[in-house]
Amino acid sequence: MTKDLQDLNKVEQFSIDAGISADELVRKMGKSGVMGAGRISTATDIITTMFKDKDCTVFLGAAGALVPGGMRNILIDVLNTGKIKVFVTTGAMLTHDLVEALGYHHYKGSARVDDAELQKKGIDRMFDSFMPNNVYEGMEDFFTKHFDEIFKEKMSIKQFIHQLGSMVPKDKPSILRSCFEKNIDIYCPAISDSGIGLMIWGHLAKNKKVDVQVFDDLKDILNTAWDAKKSGFIYLGGGVPKNFIQQAMQFSKGAAYGVQVTMDRPEPGGSSGAELREGISWGKLNEKANFTDVICDVTIALPLIWSAVKTRMK
Amino acid sequence: MTKDLQDLNKVEQFSIDAGISADELVRKMGKSGVMGAGRISTATDIITTMFKDKDCTVFLGAAGALVPGGMRNILIDVLNTGKIKVFVTTGAMLTHDLVEALGYHHYKGSARVDDAELQKKGIDRMFDSFMPNNVYEGMEDFFTKHFDEIFKEKMSIKQFIHQLGSMVPKDKPSILRSCFEKNIDIYCPAISDSGIGLMIWGHLAKNKKVDVQVFDDLKDILNTAWDAKKSGFIYLGGGVPKNFIQQAMQFSKGAAYGVQVTMDRPEPGGSSGAELREGISWGKLNEKANFTDVICDVTIALPLIWSAVKTRMK
Amino acid sequence: MTKDLQDLNKVEQFSIDAGISADELVRKMGKSGVMGAGRISTATDIITTMFKDKDCTVFLGAAGALVPGGMRNILIDVLNTGKIKVFVTTGAMLTHDLVEALGYHHYKGSARVDDAELQKKGIDRMFDSFMPNNVYEGMEDFFTKHFDEIFKEKMSIKQFIHQLGSMVPKDKPSILRSCFEKNIDIYCPAISDSGIGLMIWGHLAKNKKVDVQVFDDLKDILNTAWDAKKSGFIYLGGGVPKNFIQQAMQFSKGAAYGVQVTMDRPEPGGSSGAELREGISWGKLNEKANFTDVICDVTIALPLIWSAVKTRMK
Amino acid sequence: MTKDLQDLNKVEQFSIDAGISADELVRKMGKSGVMGAGRISTATDIITTMFKDKDCTVFLGAAGALVPGGMRNILIDVLNTGKIKVFVTTGAMLTHDLVEALGYHHYKGSARVDDAELQKKGIDRMFDSFMPNNVYEGMEDFFTKHFDEIFKEKMSIKQFIHQLGSMVPKDKPSILRSCFEKNIDIYCPAISDSGIGLMIWGHLAKNKKVDVQVFDDLKDILNTAWDAKKSGFIYLGGGVPKNFIQQAMQFSKGAAYGVQVTMDRPEPGGSSGAELREGISWGKLNEKANFTDVICDVTIALPLIWSAVKTRMK
Repeated sequence: MTKDLQDLNKVEQFSIDAGISADELVRKMGKSGVMGAGRISTATDIITTMFKDKDCTVFLGAAGALVPGGMRNILIDVLNTGKIKVFVTTGAMLTHDLVEALGYHHYKGSARVDDAELQKKGIDRMFDSFMPNNVYEGMEDFFTKHFDEIFKEKMSIKQFIHQLGSMVPKDKPSILRSCFEKNIDIYCPAISDSGIGLMIWGHLAKNKKVDVQVFDDLKDILNTAWDAKKSGFIYLGGGVPKNFIQQAMQFSKGAAYGVQVTMDRPEPGGSSGAELREGISWGKLNEKANFTDVICDVTIALPLIWSAVKTRMK
Repeated sequence: MTKDLQDLNKVEQFSIDAGISADELVRKMGKSGVMGAGRISTATDIITTMFKDKDCTVFLGAAGALVPGGMRNILIDVLNTGKIKVFVTTGAMLTHDLVEALGYHHYKGSARVDDAELQKKGIDRMFDSFMPNNVYEGMEDFFTKHFDEIFKEKMSIKQFIHQLGSMVPKDKPSILRSCFEKNIDIYCPAISDSGIGLMIWGHLAKNKKVDVQVFDDLKDILNTAWDAKKSGFIYLGGGVPKNFIQQAMQFSKGAAYGVQVTMDRPEPGGSSGAELREGISWGKLNEKANFTDVICDVTIALPLIWSAVKTRMK
Repeated sequence: MTKDLQDLNKVEQFSIDAGISADELVRKMGKSGVMGAGRISTATDIITTMFKDKDCTVFLGAAGALVPGGMRNILIDVLNTGKIKVFVTTGAMLTHDLVEALGYHHYKGSARVDDAELQKKGIDRMFDSFMPNNVYEGMEDFFTKHFDEIFKEKMSIKQFIHQLGSMVPKDKPSILRSCFEKNIDIYCPAISDSGIGLMIWGHLAKNKKVDVQVFDDLKDILNTAWDAKKSGFIYLGGGVPKNFIQQAMQFSKGAAYGVQVTMDRPEPGGSSGAELREGISWGKLNEKANFTDVICDVTIALPLIWSAVKTRMK
Repeated sequence: MTKDLQDLNKVEQFSIDAGISADELVRKMGKSGVMGAGRISTATDIITTMFKDKDCTVFLGAAGALVPGGMRNILIDVLNTGKIKVFVTTGAMLTHDLVEALGYHHYKGSARVDDAELQKKGIDRMFDSFMPNNVYEGMEDFFTKHFDEIFKEKMSIKQFIHQLGSMVPKDKPSILRSCFEKNIDIYCPAISDSGIGLMIWGHLAKNKKVDVQVFDDLKDILNTAWDAKKSGFIYLGGGVPKNFIQQAMQFSKGAAYGVQVTMDRPEPGGSSGAELREGISWGKLNEKANFTDVICDVTIALPLIWSAVKTRMK
């Protein structure tokens, strides 16, 4: 055997015992250390380290159907750790969160359906999850009740979302509420692209006035990145949340930690599927950073990684 | 053979002659009629029909690294047909277009590189394309020169982009210029998430004032969708551009035509990879619509489809 | 809310406690019940039911770099349950197993390497796992020692593999050994397409004689499918293992249970990425079957599913 | 701009004229030179060069539903160039070819169907293509008529397939016929995993005798690789065809040319999705080779590439 291999660790063929904990399972996947198994373990290690590193400012980006996919409480749990300084997400994520905060639910449906039938029944489909279309009525009531209070003054999108968070029902946890209560910098550049956007439009159409500024949040997120001793990021899916944090990272010292979980491919060249490594060229990621790309459905990877991280942080 | 097959068309095993035109090639792929070949042909047919249908209002969404991928002139060509009423895109797309409009270029690089070396050399990588980091200087000059003129008054994002389009050099075609000159409704909800956003931030940091409103464009795009006799959409990639148009389609009669080209998967549930069919449940797509999902890199599918559409429209 | 939703289960937004077991985690993913999370849980339920159903004959197909990926002991564990009647795999899988049985190892490498350097060092790469090229010497010794004994008579591929299994070192578990000892019907139609194939060729080149028959195994696997009261299958990856079992299923009553784990896409039309549902048209899968397609890297899904199945079977 | 970029070619933003030829389109995609567009052009260049290089022995591997997808005549055209020395494929490919050779057809179906209904109607589905189940009767007749003639003596799989090729109807082109007439070395290691395999089994069950040897083809393909001054390969899909040629390449000087077209991902570590570059570590690909990985549905990429190659070879 060449010397070069002697310096490497063996792929350990690990065994599983009945009753194994999720954390132990992830540790064993790390003993394999390669392919998807290895990356799940590495992601867990990196996130745990990132959370324990007091010098590290953590940026979390989340896109995709995570709330319809049942990931809402895990996201809330992550936000409630107090470790997340900045959270960037999509308008759809906040809409789905608001919908649940208002007492509605998503349902276990199927992708093998007649969508025209669903349409007649007032059911909106997201792959195999269903949402009743009447959630829009509940949102409409919420915004009618709170509109004037929310839009009293000129504001940034972050301020708007914090306003929302201060007004959603307090009795149950929500993403919006956690961001407000924990004073997490929540950004959603494309907020108008969502059910929440539609609600605002409905009131604008009735000549209500709002003054939410497109560019005002940039100052905050770029300053946060600039001021950070060290920074780390976690991307659950791609889209604007990933890109908006990546953009901020250019103003950091280059992230010291990075994890992304995605099913998108790098070859077509878009940001969502781009390998994290690419960010080194831009100065978004430090060349000595600890980072990994987990190629996996977030609804599989996140519960597994979070089970292990939470256990280790206890 | 069952009667049911007698009613179906055969998959024709087509042959190719030397010198075949791209249009004829796509027609032959339609003779196969199945899998990717069939979908390329169907997409071509749908787009041609959509463009010829005078009652149809066409919405084009484009995300991803299309300009670094060499698709800029094709996009301009599509916009210049006069068939596109609404164009929704990403801040990165507009930034890349501006960069080229200012005389910079993207370069044929490689994904097999040392990104730390690129960083030292001032080269930003997007998969296997490179961009010199000094494009930011050129953009900075452009915005310094035009800032006060651009931001004289309160505006929507569309108005801001049209302003940009009116100021980019006139001697060469650009996406920005075409949208301005053809008076195409151009929307970019997440404009702050881009190099252009960074330029604005740079001036805000110097206490310049801007007033660009987050929600003002919704009125326009939703009215356009509402007023359309018939509507059709083309999605090149997913992200906000697709979702923002999908959202508007809920206010249409349900799109009559739809084409998407993407490499994203539907199973994780996100909007980018969602099958168009799902939109029927939401009322975004008419149940009798003519639509197809092309699972392909846009930089492969778009030139092929456009070659055929352009030939047929001549 | 429509009546139709009242009949459906809600997507439960589940929480995770520190120390959670892998089995409990999978149960919680089932409370989400949708997207990847739901499918992991469904796959676990189906496999557990399949294993507990005494009338069910279980067929396991496995392709891909599972041994270099650290999954060898899990595979052995699955085989040792006594629940697997038929195991179909690739020549590479058996070669990797033999390599480890002979005392060699795979190593944690990287995909970010200079492959020409590896070549000089005698290291063969499989994505981010490495294998020393000198395993071929060890295999050569093994076959030289056992060749005449193995090939004494005319045989099927299954008999050949059982011969191998009877001769590999007994001190440590191996896939080959388990199949031999548990008398599992192991099939590997493309056995010549492997390092083991190369070993045989090396001896044929020295005028050794072997008589292994291409079509002889069909009788066995088709009879097993035909005779089964009920059948179920598990596909880890696609390729020949999946297709060979699918082919046999046409002779069964249509599988009653089915699970596949793959990252391949269905749209290009190939067997590896084909949705299981398609098998209903062929009679490979019973229309009332309990089945699911898990879109996930096997090295992530398998340890998670197996942790839960093993716990439940205890 | 850094010197490093001055040495690189610009991504040319190309335009398309109505009536453009497919070859010209591919040349223009090469002017982009990056992402999918660039790879289509590079693949075309490599295949053209490979075919013109008189010292090069060309190996073609093809897997997947290419015949149901309408690619049969293109494959025949490629085989009939006389440039292909070795063709490796799947049993399904040969079965689909035989089915069409016997006068049956595949049909344009849909993936949005009730597979149980199809089953009742005797229709087998491959994604959105349909095949009448009664093709098995036609194949049965063919084998009943020719069985004794085919299996007169001991043979390798290649000899068996050539026998088939000599017996299929001569009036229309077929893959089997071309391989026979052009004396192309055709290999199909997993031939038993196919409808053809089932036919043989049917006769074995009636106590007919066949003697087809598993390992006999290895000598030929490895010798061909060994003897080749230079070698090149084209992989349409992965599976056994790719792997079997890759294995042979270890005995060559390392392929000088390589093209693969696939939708499979590299990250899970399997052979089908593995980047060609990985083969350098094994000595399968020469470190100075001209090669590319096209990430695309074969039914899209193949007609486009072949249109251009055929035009250039004229």
